[in-house]
Amino acid sequence: MTNESNGNGVSTSGHAPTTPLSIDTVNKRVINSEYAVRGEIVQLAQKLARELEEGKGSHPFDKVVWCNIGNPQILGQKPITYFRQVLALCECPQLLEHPGIRELFPSDVIARAQLLVKQIPGGLGAYSDSAGALIIRQLVADSIARRDGYPASPENIYMLDGASPGVHYMMDLLLRETRDSMMVPIPQYPLYSATLTLYGGTLMPYLLDEGAGWGLDVAHLKAQLAKARDQGLCVRAMVVINPGNPTGQCLSYQNMRDVLSFCHEEKLVLIADEVYQANIYVGNKEFFSFKKVVCDMGLLEEVPLVSLHSISKGFIGECGRRGGYMEVTGFPEAVKDQILKLASINLCPNLSGQICCALMMNPPQAGEPSYEQYRAEKSAILGSLKRRAELLVGALNRLEGVSCNAAEGALYAFPRVTLPAAAVAAAKKLGKQPDWLYCRELLAATGIVVVPGSGFGQADGTFHFRTTFLPSEEDIVLVVEALAKFHAAFLAKYGGLTEAEVKADLAAATGANSA
Amino acid sequence: MTNESNGNGVSTSGHAPTTPLSIDTVNKRVINSEYAVRGEIVQLAQKLARELEEGKGSHPFDKVVWCNIGNPQILGQKPITYFRQVLALCECPQLLEHPGIRELFPSDVIARAQLLVKQIPGGLGAYSDSAGALIIRQLVADSIARRDGYPASPENIYMLDGASPGVHYMMDLLLRETRDSMMVPIPQYPLYSATLTLYGGTLMPYLLDEGAGWGLDVAHLKAQLAKARDQGLCVRAMVVINPGNPTGQCLSYQNMRDVLSFCHEEKLVLIADEVYQANIYVGNKEFFSFKKVVCDMGLLEEVPLVSLHSISKGFIGECGRRGGYMEVTGFPEAVKDQILKLASINLCPNLSGQICCALMMNPPQAGEPSYEQYRAEKSAILGSLKRRAELLVGALNRLEGVSCNAAEGALYAFPRVTLPAAAVAAAKKLGKQPDWLYCRELLAATGIVVVPGSGFGQADGTFHFRTTFLPSEEDIVLVVEALAKFHAAFLAKYGGLTEAEVKADLAAATGANSA
Repeated sequence: MTNESNGNGVSTSGHAPTTPLSIDTVNKRVINSEYAVRGEIVQLAQKLARELEEGKGSHPFDKVVWCNIGNPQILGQKPITYFRQVLALCECPQLLEHPGIRELFPSDVIARAQLLVKQIPGGLGAYSDSAGALIIRQLVADSIARRDGYPASPENIYMLDGASPGVHYMMDLLLRETRDSMMVPIPQYPLYSATLTLYGGTLMPYLLDEGAGWGLDVAHLKAQLAKARDQGLCVRAMVVINPGNPTGQCLSYQNMRDVLSFCHEEKLVLIADEVYQANIYVGNKEFFSFKKVVCDMGLLEEVPLVSLHSISKGFIGECGRRGGYMEVTGFPEAVKDQILKLASINLCPNLSGQICCALMMNPPQAGEPSYEQYRAEKSAILGSLKRRAELLVGALNRLEGVSCNAAEGALYAFPRVTLPAAAVAAAKKLGKQPDWLYCRELLAATGIVVVPGSGFGQADGTFHFRTTFLPSEEDIVLVVEALAKFHAAFLAKYGGLTEAEVKADLAAATGANSA
Repeated sequence: MTNESNGNGVSTSGHAPTTPLSIDTVNKRVINSEYAVRGEIVQLAQKLARELEEGKGSHPFDKVVWCNIGNPQILGQKPITYFRQVLALCECPQLLEHPGIRELFPSDVIARAQLLVKQIPGGLGAYSDSAGALIIRQLVADSIARRDGYPASPENIYMLDGASPGVHYMMDLLLRETRDSMMVPIPQYPLYSATLTLYGGTLMPYLLDEGAGWGLDVAHLKAQLAKARDQGLCVRAMVVINPGNPTGQCLSYQNMRDVLSFCHEEKLVLIADEVYQANIYVGNKEFFSFKKVVCDMGLLEEVPLVSLHSISKGFIGECGRRGGYMEVTGFPEAVKDQILKLASINLCPNLSGQICCALMMNPPQAGEPSYEQYRAEKSAILGSLKRRAELLVGALNRLEGVSCNAAEGALYAFPRVTLPAAAVAAAKKLGKQPDWLYCRELLAATGIVVVPGSGFGQADGTFHFRTTFLPSEEDIVLVVEALAKFHAAFLAKYGGLTEAEVKADLAAATGANSA
């Protein structure tokens, strides 16, 4: 490695002097990585939240509303009772011996906890196999097989602390040097851009087509791959997020076949981020796993496929527990051994997350004592998310200069905002992106925290923001009102509208609620 | 970066062809990293354990004894009741409302769970701040201040999924290219060598002196640093494991001052792995944190210091929960922001581990209802570990050609074994290390899993293995007997001893137990 090209400013002298720790001597890949979901806007919001709590400063709102991240329980979503009951018993197995236990917990909860306590060697407090406890991987594999109608093996399941470590493992495995590349959708979930930067690879974007409901066009994929190869990049993998984050679209079955054919022909690993598989809100769309489609095509052994899933999303929302898994198929055994080694360096994923993942994949069945409550909690959360998605997207589309595709799935809306020229100029003056300015002023005016579209990537000259629709149904009405009021004021500030025009816009945007 | 030097065999042609996934196209840093604690011997042991469970094959033992890894609960150590009770209530806060709750849990458990449920925003199922929930960091900081007699701030605490992620963060921050280096003790816990390889840095060893109870000689440190600099290495940090792993020694106060002076003069970050701070078994040694010593020296702001701690070791042994923290002092604020960004890319450490860490640092106090049981459980575990350590080390020292320093702390013995020339030759023939052969044959003969010394590093021409002393007191007597019998047979096989000599050795080694 020659020093001139490493960009890290390391001295080349034979006898190196001391190199004190400073921001200038830190790995530049770390400095250059960005993760907007918890970036600058969010840090400002945390400061505001502390000020509000301590009664400091004067703010035009009385609470911070966290729409920056899919973190349902912090916004009041209740955990699924069944999961928590089983977990409490696994934490404290001596409760299973208590004479009054059957008055506290349903019999299926007790039976499930007994099975897990017995089958997990050493229980919740012992390191499991690095890929996860065998009983957990078996339960996960069995449920994948039921979902897809094709066999699944615990040998292909790697339990994870959330889905993110699976992405880290793939980056570590596949990125040998800066010319190694992955194709990533734009807009994307910034975990991908951040880890590509950290691991020293190059992101090759493919654009989702906003005008076609964030469609994925395989002809465009081919063109981008050719472009990458012309640039001397070695494209190792393609990332697909389905349902999309931040875009919410749900891929059609035919589109998935085309993507798999493309990966097959071009010898790419397909990294399928399927963590929103339970979040679909439109009747004409259905989730298919890439695993099922690759089996339908008879290409299971031909296409290296990583399918990621998590307990953090869906109607579960157990983000803070950090649980997830990846199913790895079509990989050479020797490469799977390397994944296991990477997992072993981290010892094992946390057992509480492993257990919750097994429960997510194996919920109570009809006829079991916990079934009715489970079913009711699940459908209440999903039904409410659907109503909130429609309410939010509808309201966004009524704002002047704002358009938003339907949120078919996931937990986010990603509206496009036409920003006045004066706002773009003002942002430039600050050395910031125009959508950053919009989000910054939204936060200052309303306490609502959203993430600038530039943190996810967007077509040149377009501006967006990502917002979750996770505030409660009462709160989301207030979010919609506050957003409409802010938006009109922002246009007035930068667009030179008259006060009357602003008022008219506001009335149109908030409809009956603004009466 | 020029292609010739990357060692990863990436094609240089402008228009790259497809690069199918295979073991030959995987990142060589991954291939080259080794983590012996869960390496080849352990994989063989897992296979044996499955065969025993399924009644397959014929083996001269009826169970596998896992002495490869500090994983107490898999060997029957019971969790501390208080921790599990609080955790069960945090999992299932609705139990706090149950009228019968006071018959199930002591009042201090209920009060502690109520505090945590109230103070952790969104509870156990919500992402916390990336550095950990504020209440948790505050509880940890307060207890560090009590331990050391110096202030500690939640702003310097980063909660982690075990201690390992802290090591990953430091490697990522400090290793810019292959010439960036860290000084690591030999023998060492292989997390350090594995992550140095993964992150593309260079390990600069400093030898612990086996003849002086695994002492750390600062003159030798200086000589090794000069050697590293002569080789053009840029040494960024020094790792100290205290109490030692795999060596068990406990540093003296003066030795710690000398290490800190060395790091101060040479502008090195000191990474202090202090996860065994509760495991000290000899009356004449005491644990001091590097944080306390650096404060005593008035150098808190001068020496960048990372202190790692974990819930996995001590008398807690909650390995599978993955909880830990690092306290970071003497770092520029801008660098701390980068640590926080790395943490944010992983979203947050799991809440169950965070809570358990806060409980470890703030156990029941005298007078509280849970105190007596907590105190009794703690002293039973530590007392038993001390007896097991002495029993094991004593027995090892009675074996022919084996010597073992006292295990002053931690959970391991690291005996030196003089291997017969024929065994060394036999290993060479297999392309293996001689200590690998010894451990491999020990496993095959007894079911006891230990880790070859070569996985930790050892002085040239010496051979060791690492074994925990975690099997129960009944089991460890059997381990000692089986080991003695195997050792004598191994010497007979490779050393040409007569059968009578073997029997005499065996009798001497196992003492009264072999009657």
